[in-house]
Amino acid sequence: MMSEDERFGLDRSVRLLGPLPLDSGASLAPVEFAYETYGTLNAERSNAILVCHALTGDQYVASTHPLTGKPGWWERIVGPGKPVDTDRHFVICANVLGSCLGSSGPATINPATEKPWAMDFPVITIADMVRAQAMLLDHLGIERLHAVIGGSMGGMQAVSWAALYPERVASAVIIASAARHSAQNIAFHEVGRQAIMADPRWRKGAYYADDDPPSSGLAVARMAAHITYLSEAGLTEKFGRRLQDRDAKTFGFDADFQVESYLRHQGISFVDRFDANSYLYITRAMDYFDLAESHGGALANAFRGSKTRFCLISFDTDWLYPTSESRAIVHALNAAGAEVSFMELSSPFGHDSFLLDNPEMYRIIDGFLKAGEGR
Amino acid sequence: MMSEDERFGLDRSVRLLGPLPLDSGASLAPVEFAYETYGTLNAERSNAILVCHALTGDQYVASTHPLTGKPGWWERIVGPGKPVDTDRHFVICANVLGSCLGSSGPATINPATEKPWAMDFPVITIADMVRAQAMLLDHLGIERLHAVIGGSMGGMQAVSWAALYPERVASAVIIASAARHSAQNIAFHEVGRQAIMADPRWRKGAYYADDDPPSSGLAVARMAAHITYLSEAGLTEKFGRRLQDRDAKTFGFDADFQVESYLRHQGISFVDRFDANSYLYITRAMDYFDLAESHGGALANAFRGSKTRFCLISFDTDWLYPTSESRAIVHALNAAGAEVSFMELSSPFGHDSFLLDNPEMYRIIDGFLKAGEGR
Repeated sequence: MMSEDERFGLDRSVRLLGPLPLDSGASLAPVEFAYETYGTLNAERSNAILVCHALTGDQYVASTHPLTGKPGWWERIVGPGKPVDTDRHFVICANVLGSCLGSSGPATINPATEKPWAMDFPVITIADMVRAQAMLLDHLGIERLHAVIGGSMGGMQAVSWAALYPERVASAVIIASAARHSAQNIAFHEVGRQAIMADPRWRKGAYYADDDPPSSGLAVARMAAHITYLSEAGLTEKFGRRLQDRDAKTFGFDADFQVESYLRHQGISFVDRFDANSYLYITRAMDYFDLAESHGGALANAFRGSKTRFCLISFDTDWLYPTSESRAIVHALNAAGAEVSFMELSSPFGHDSFLLDNPEMYRIIDGFLKAGEGR
Repeated sequence: MMSEDERFGLDRSVRLLGPLPLDSGASLAPVEFAYETYGTLNAERSNAILVCHALTGDQYVASTHPLTGKPGWWERIVGPGKPVDTDRHFVICANVLGSCLGSSGPATINPATEKPWAMDFPVITIADMVRAQAMLLDHLGIERLHAVIGGSMGGMQAVSWAALYPERVASAVIIASAARHSAQNIAFHEVGRQAIMADPRWRKGAYYADDDPPSSGLAVARMAAHITYLSEAGLTEKFGRRLQDRDAKTFGFDADFQVESYLRHQGISFVDRFDANSYLYITRAMDYFDLAESHGGALANAFRGSKTRFCLISFDTDWLYPTSESRAIVHALNAAGAEVSFMELSSPFGHDSFLLDNPEMYRIIDGFLKAGEGR
């Protein structure tokens, strides 16, 4: 029975020999993966869906996070009877290459030194992340995905899956994402990296030995990034200029405003679950991402002859990866003759909308995946 | 002759006894001012224009900055034959209260300790800045301003001038500004403050003695803020994804992209001319700014019975203080029966547009000020 297969289930990990050739020219060996699977792989191995997570996401898409105790980050989407239905589908979610929840990254051991890689970890790209996932799928015995799905950086992986392995992807769902990082996207990430590297405890990344990481810098990076995940209107609706547990301004530098208190909390709680060097590596991978550039400058070239079905969703208040970025992908897919459906959804919550309650998003994903099952 | 008056000219400073009562309930004494004047005050003392500078601006509006050697920050607007015409007008620009170019602020001496105030400097507001300027105008013998003009935080001061001293302001020009700080505005400032305070060299603000300021934190704060001054389209036009002096990505953490190099430069050069504690105090003043709140919740109340003429200008790509914020002021002025003209200008350069070459802006300011002279 598949369910007794040790490769499948919650909280799995595997070390594959590799080597994994990287875009930089370097290669990585071994390649460690931490991942989870949900549901049952059918006999035809045709019901697998790969969920790709965002920058600070993880493999705990539909199970409790071991560090925070919080529910899985996409339990609204993934689970029994959910749009990514674990009663019908076999769902895989792996910690992304470069991250810090168990897959190979700067905090894992460099076999050459038997110490954490730190900044000797090779710089990776979104395509490298996808190639690593393909290696994991090979290990799991999955040749072809029923679907790959992701939001934000997860969408970058999903669209890259379709470009790199069109024959392995029946359907791709790309939410609140983009086919390249804009100058403004790069700028915000650079602020975050500089905040980390300005923290004296960063010590060029070599902070693992004494467990004294650059938490202050990482918290500032998170705060800056977090603003980009929310819309101005959403922040006004949620916080406005309301004061935090006080009747009047204190004329000091405490968190007088709710929005300050909220942001500080976002920064402080983030450092308990994320590694600063991973933040550097993953933001770098995103900044390097430009799918058109790696296809001779024309995004449509990434999809020529593709038989993959595509579903794109954007949110009208997302200013990090605005609708125009999704539309650029749709235009390229149209030019390449690919099958694509696209919807801009209305939500006040900016980029974060893909993680929040949105019945229209559920219906679109559910309908798109079900339509693909008839084929 | 006025020109021999020691109070007038470039690079002036004065220490007034005060005390200056502050919104916090504290008071400040003495009150130091560093300021410049341009042009000649006429016999009727009726041709004075006060220019208010923005967060990181200074009194060097139309003369070379002593630290950077760069031209005055608004020489496009202020000078002989310019919209704020120093052949016709007597122009005053003072370093704002709380700043670091010579006016009272955290870096100036606390008479009680004979050491720099540092974080013992009282928290100030935009209204406090304006009251201090009124004290300076009293000293200069100027009862009534032909006009007060400013962009960004300078516009907040200009609109506050009209609200606090309607009888002293004939005309007010408010550019790329707002009558309150939004949740998103506060959030970005809070990131900057946290970046400064996270720098171990900040030492709760007591860094003046050994000349070892929290430059890393301040640079990060500046980088984050700088992104908000530019539009996404402007960044794309100016930098896009172009690489900096290299043909290919380095697969490292150097500034591969021009936009990274530019931002780093913005951060590094800023710390040579600005004090981190001043950055804390002035951003706090801006976050506290809500002109409606201090008038019973209705912005129109700030302008009831005002005979001041108003000119508002916004820029279509300014997402820091978007047109909707200017429009809110215009609606309040209309409701109060005040005279107001308003124009949204088109520019790709976001909030920074008010500092850049924009002939339409020049024409509007010129025409508005000239129309006011006939009265």
